[in-house]
Amino acid sequence: MNTNFADTVILCIEIIGTIAFALSGAVIAAQRRMDIFGVLVLGVCTAVGGGCIRDIILGINPPNMFRNPIYALLAALASFLVFCVARSAPEIIITNRIQNMSLFNFLDAMGLGIFSVIGVNTAIDAGFADNAFLQIFVGVITGVGGGILRDMLAGEMPSVLKRDVYASASFVGAALYACCYQFINQWVGMFLSAATVVIIRLLAAKFYWNLPSAIPKDWMPRQD
Amino acid sequence: MNTNFADTVILCIEIIGTIAFALSGAVIAAQRRMDIFGVLVLGVCTAVGGGCIRDIILGINPPNMFRNPIYALLAALASFLVFCVARSAPEIIITNRIQNMSLFNFLDAMGLGIFSVIGVNTAIDAGFADNAFLQIFVGVITGVGGGILRDMLAGEMPSVLKRDVYASASFVGAALYACCYQFINQWVGMFLSAATVVIIRLLAAKFYWNLPSAIPKDWMPRQD
Amino acid sequence: MNTNFADTVILCIEIIGTIAFALSGAVIAAQRRMDIFGVLVLGVCTAVGGGCIRDIILGINPPNMFRNPIYALLAALASFLVFCVARSAPEIIITNRIQNMSLFNFLDAMGLGIFSVIGVNTAIDAGFADNAFLQIFVGVITGVGGGILRDMLAGEMPSVLKRDVYASASFVGAALYACCYQFINQWVGMFLSAATVVIIRLLAAKFYWNLPSAIPKDWMPRQD
Repeated sequence: MNTNFADTVILCIEIIGTIAFALSGAVIAAQRRMDIFGVLVLGVCTAVGGGCIRDIILGINPPNMFRNPIYALLAALASFLVFCVARSAPEIIITNRIQNMSLFNFLDAMGLGIFSVIGVNTAIDAGFADNAFLQIFVGVITGVGGGILRDMLAGEMPSVLKRDVYASASFVGAALYACCYQFINQWVGMFLSAATVVIIRLLAAKFYWNLPSAIPKDWMPRQD
Repeated sequence: MNTNFADTVILCIEIIGTIAFALSGAVIAAQRRMDIFGVLVLGVCTAVGGGCIRDIILGINPPNMFRNPIYALLAALASFLVFCVARSAPEIIITNRIQNMSLFNFLDAMGLGIFSVIGVNTAIDAGFADNAFLQIFVGVITGVGGGILRDMLAGEMPSVLKRDVYASASFVGAALYACCYQFINQWVGMFLSAATVVIIRLLAAKFYWNLPSAIPKDWMPRQD
Repeated sequence: MNTNFADTVILCIEIIGTIAFALSGAVIAAQRRMDIFGVLVLGVCTAVGGGCIRDIILGINPPNMFRNPIYALLAALASFLVFCVARSAPEIIITNRIQNMSLFNFLDAMGLGIFSVIGVNTAIDAGFADNAFLQIFVGVITGVGGGILRDMLAGEMPSVLKRDVYASASFVGAALYACCYQFINQWVGMFLSAATVVIIRLLAAKFYWNLPSAIPKDWMPRQD
């Protein structure tokens, strides 16, 4: 495959993922009745927060989001769009209509997939090619860190800790890529691993897969 | 203007801001019925947390608060004072009497202003003179990061995401300074930009300015 | 004392502390009805989160947990054990039976003690032998940072800010070691300081010591 073409495709998927992540943050901010500043902050944090935590762990100063402001700016634009929709048609935001769209789920899954493999790539490029544990960890952090930050800023328990197959899809993709990048072409590895994440996510969403809960939600201690 | 004199004035404003920020953190800790340790932690985190996040983003290790412990010590002293007041006269703390004082608002605004421009300065000194996006971002983080940390430690949604014109005042000051520091004398730029923040904050407090909310607080979905 | 023997003892205490911390995180995750991923994340974050924050402050990239994955793996194993217990006998988890065991309290106190002095040691080794403020600060962060992260991820106010003598025991041990490491043998200093933390913790647990609260829990403003 032509490298320039692969680079362009990856950039496009990154941009799609950035926007999808920003939308999910901005919608939660609007639902919490935040002001325009809060909507922008939650949108941008969700979109670039995972990469920011990754870069701090890897010692990349300043984090990459400050060298390519394009991602943060796109996220801010997408968040502003959510703000405008919320002002004119609040019921679209309140009723979770955006998050329930299958298109949104698809784009969000693409973001999760591409961010997970890019996280692994960043660890390799930062000189940690021999530390698969670190690569997988920062891969998952790149994928789900923004969502964790979003929920903590919104004053909630991070949904990724209790909700369906999301972080585990990221984990499978990051682990797959960390294991196979040495043996096959980098671009093929990235696309295969990211596609694996997307497929797991979409299957999980379609068939309501959930990881087993430690204690079922409706379990109550016996009254003796 | 004499440089030494300007340095002294900035140091004084920094100390005033540190104490005002520590007071706001310690009061919230006391209201949450924390113990003496919690009051000190919230006071110190509010006062120096913004600068600490800034230094981690910029790769300044260890963060500046550890090289000049004077700020953390002053913040701890101010927090201890709040603790003593809470022990002897809890109603002063519970009824928000401190935060409602116009003197407190004035000192807090001075802190917000000076921290925002110092954040921009720190980014420039750390070698990022050509990255206005980074400068403005860490300027705002220096100004409001401590308050965000305070609210997250207190288990609340950060008030800066939904409350009146606070972060946006910091943004205007940081952006003004980041834009003009190349063209005018550094001290003049710092004082002008910090003063802009103070004026916006005081006007916002006096006239109850608020940024537009994404969805009004009393908006309810129609029952059809 | 033989250095190798001392090293081995410290490693054993570290492993015990890691497991005890992981248990406390995993139990809280199970109580919040998180899934297997959430249980593992909270367990691992509680066990290695304090050291991770310390390394980010000290500029150690990547944090030590990624160079010796053994700690994170042990924490994950202990968390998985909690998950299995929660699946088969939820009442053990829900009723706080693990945290109420004196054995658990003892192991947790050992972890708090050893992590606090190891934090001081890490700061010294990172080149900050002349900054006692930084040493004590990162000592306490290493001891209690994981628990703070655990509570923030669980959507709660960090218990360390309001609960009995925990962070203050860590503070006494870190300060003792930071003051005396120059004058006495390193291993003697570490064991004495860590033992001080354990003794303070156990006495505090036995006699229900509490730091004074800023405002008593049952204090209500007078209705006039």
